[in-house]
Amino acid sequence: MSERYRRGIDIAEQLAADKIAHFVESGVAEVAPDFARMVIEFAFGDIYARDALDLKSRELIAIAVLAASGKAGPQLRLHVESAASSGIGKAEIVEVLMQIALYAGFPTALNALADCHDLLTEDNCVVARCG
Amino acid sequence: MSERYRRGIDIAEQLAADKIAHFVESGVAEVAPDFARMVIEFAFGDIYARDALDLKSRELIAIAVLAASGKAGPQLRLHVESAASSGIGKAEIVEVLMQIALYAGFPTALNALADCHDLLTEDNCVVARCG
Amino acid sequence: MSERYRRGIDIAEQLAADKIAHFVESGVAEVAPDFARMVIEFAFGDIYARDALDLKSRELIAIAVLAASGKAGPQLRLHVESAASSGIGKAEIVEVLMQIALYAGFPTALNALADCHDLLTEDNCVVARCG
Amino acid sequence: MSERYRRGIDIAEQLAADKIAHFVESGVAEVAPDFARMVIEFAFGDIYARDALDLKSRELIAIAVLAASGKAGPQLRLHVESAASSGIGKAEIVEVLMQIALYAGFPTALNALADCHDLLTEDNCVVARCG
Amino acid sequence: MSERYRRGIDIAEQLAADKIAHFVESGVAEVAPDFARMVIEFAFGDIYARDALDLKSRELIAIAVLAASGKAGPQLRLHVESAASSGIGKAEIVEVLMQIALYAGFPTALNALADCHDLLTEDNCVVARCG
Amino acid sequence: MSERYRRGIDIAEQLAADKIAHFVESGVAEVAPDFARMVIEFAFGDIYARDALDLKSRELIAIAVLAASGKAGPQLRLHVESAASSGIGKAEIVEVLMQIALYAGFPTALNALADCHDLLTEDNCVVARCG
Repeated sequence: MSERYRRGIDIAEQLAADKIAHFVESGVAEVAPDFARMVIEFAFGDIYARDALDLKSRELIAIAVLAASGKAGPQLRLHVESAASSGIGKAEIVEVLMQIALYAGFPTALNALADCHDLLTEDNCVVARCG
Repeated sequence: MSERYRRGIDIAEQLAADKIAHFVESGVAEVAPDFARMVIEFAFGDIYARDALDLKSRELIAIAVLAASGKAGPQLRLHVESAASSGIGKAEIVEVLMQIALYAGFPTALNALADCHDLLTEDNCVVARCG
Repeated sequence: MSERYRRGIDIAEQLAADKIAHFVESGVAEVAPDFARMVIEFAFGDIYARDALDLKSRELIAIAVLAASGKAGPQLRLHVESAASSGIGKAEIVEVLMQIALYAGFPTALNALADCHDLLTEDNCVVARCG
Repeated sequence: MSERYRRGIDIAEQLAADKIAHFVESGVAEVAPDFARMVIEFAFGDIYARDALDLKSRELIAIAVLAASGKAGPQLRLHVESAASSGIGKAEIVEVLMQIALYAGFPTALNALADCHDLLTEDNCVVARCG
Repeated sequence: MSERYRRGIDIAEQLAADKIAHFVESGVAEVAPDFARMVIEFAFGDIYARDALDLKSRELIAIAVLAASGKAGPQLRLHVESAASSGIGKAEIVEVLMQIALYAGFPTALNALADCHDLLTEDNCVVARCG
Repeated sequence: MSERYRRGIDIAEQLAADKIAHFVESGVAEVAPDFARMVIEFAFGDIYARDALDLKSRELIAIAVLAASGKAGPQLRLHVESAASSGIGKAEIVEVLMQIALYAGFPTALNALADCHDLLTEDNCVVARCG
């Protein structure tokens, strides 16, 4: 286990411990184990580990870019689910998804809101400060 | 209720009354009510309300651009369903989806045709002049 | 010369005679002559030649989809330049570029307007009804 | 039946006989029969039929570009399923999907791996040399 | 002048007074004056004016999404130039552009860095805290 | 200097020695030195270094995906310039750029051919087997 992997797992677990454990044992890891390891090493061990941006800013950026891409539903949901860990509330997430309409158009913003609907409504709310 | 919202709802209902009522009370409106209002105000109250393009041209454009984006299935279906309201027939919609293959490639055109298949076949046809 | 090519050239010249002659003798044709021929055959000889959509609708769609893609500047300019041939005025083109902001975001619409600025201003106007 | 269609069907069947038969009789063909024919004629009869690239290279390219687009799931699966016909093994497909992460980002690569998971795991393996 | 426009101009000038004045009198405004007004009203008067996200977060998101789109160079430069106004330093911008490599691939991140190179180097630095 | 970096530089230089030296000392490296290093380490040291795909296949894939993205001109040119190093001739590159029209549309393929025109014509040909 490389130092990059250890550092990556630490940060990923800080964001979403159960999700990351799930990913590391997931179908992707089954078919492409080296790639699953590289994702942890590079995304979290190399990039997220740098301290020029705090974790909250990194998560706002992740949610914004993934939503704006319009084709990363599972990853968008993962980051919305783990947003609370870095101090992001429901209202802020909704606001990010509204702002991306400016750059990516209304359908993309509406579909992102629909993709995360259950994560953003109060009864099924996974976000800490969703009140 | 702003004048822009009133004008937007009028136009949106002209296109697809039931769909729009559904949207205004939808999950999106529940999570992001201001955004649902803004979509009506801006998309229909500001842009569609302008008369330099007739509604039929606007709907051909909406169908073409949404299909070519390859990531706006729900909105593509909505505009295909409401196409008849602005005088667009089934044959024209199929033709638009064929033409976008030139600009967006064959998979995108084929997937758009598949996404709207039930709306374009005769037995389940929602388009007025689909004969 | 295939029948498809002949039909394609006829339609393409109807839209923009000088531009098409230029394309057929262009760098693309020099490097990939078969592909230059295929573009004429398929885009104009097969798709544009079909009569389920009139030429004006096809050009509105071409301008909208090319602009919304945000990465087809040369082709967007070509279709804006030839729009007048199919009866599209300056005000309609501006309106199409505004409408795509709904689906592709503001930067894409603004950049499309900037790309075509000289074609849309009165002094340098190539569009017939640009008054 | 044009010569281009006959040649296209021959090549397409070489890749995936049952899938192509299915496509030719599919919903797309039902709604847009001319387009289904054009896809066979142009994609396989015109492009794939050219011999400057062997079929294995064409399939690696198809898998890479479709996966990187992030919006061509059905076509990606079709080409992964037919990869064995042109001598591509499971390990190579996984490698292609890893490489596209460089150009299209990690979420797109991960989603492509997930889309094809059942086609790439051993128990349900459709690829000849998937050992 | 609508209240939304006045509010939008106030916020836009807070970010980049000279750039906004330039935009309002630009070629876009010349060809599509209503659209130039709508951009100010909607982007800044409606979205940016909401207080659920602070201006610094909005600018990080703008830079990230515009860079990740790979096709909004002028807007990316505008927001990088105005980043200092909302308290964003050079190191943070570089960090954002590095992070988008995860979601949009390396070429897009490298091209964004190249597009903004002169804005990020010390001798020609427009960002306040670029030391 | 990490083992991953050393391995990455070795492979990158195999492809295009002068270009890579240029990149490592480029503006990107000046503004974001860690990122320039990561690109070498990850793209070439981790991915390209794997032997499940030969270098020729990796370069065909790089050219295809970069061209199809429509927004990676500098990287497309770099890989076209270095294609000869991995045994790819001019005719094959043209063929790849033609094939991507199927998946990414005609304008994207035409623009890729135009972007690389000088690299593909005989007088200015950088590709070994361009005859």
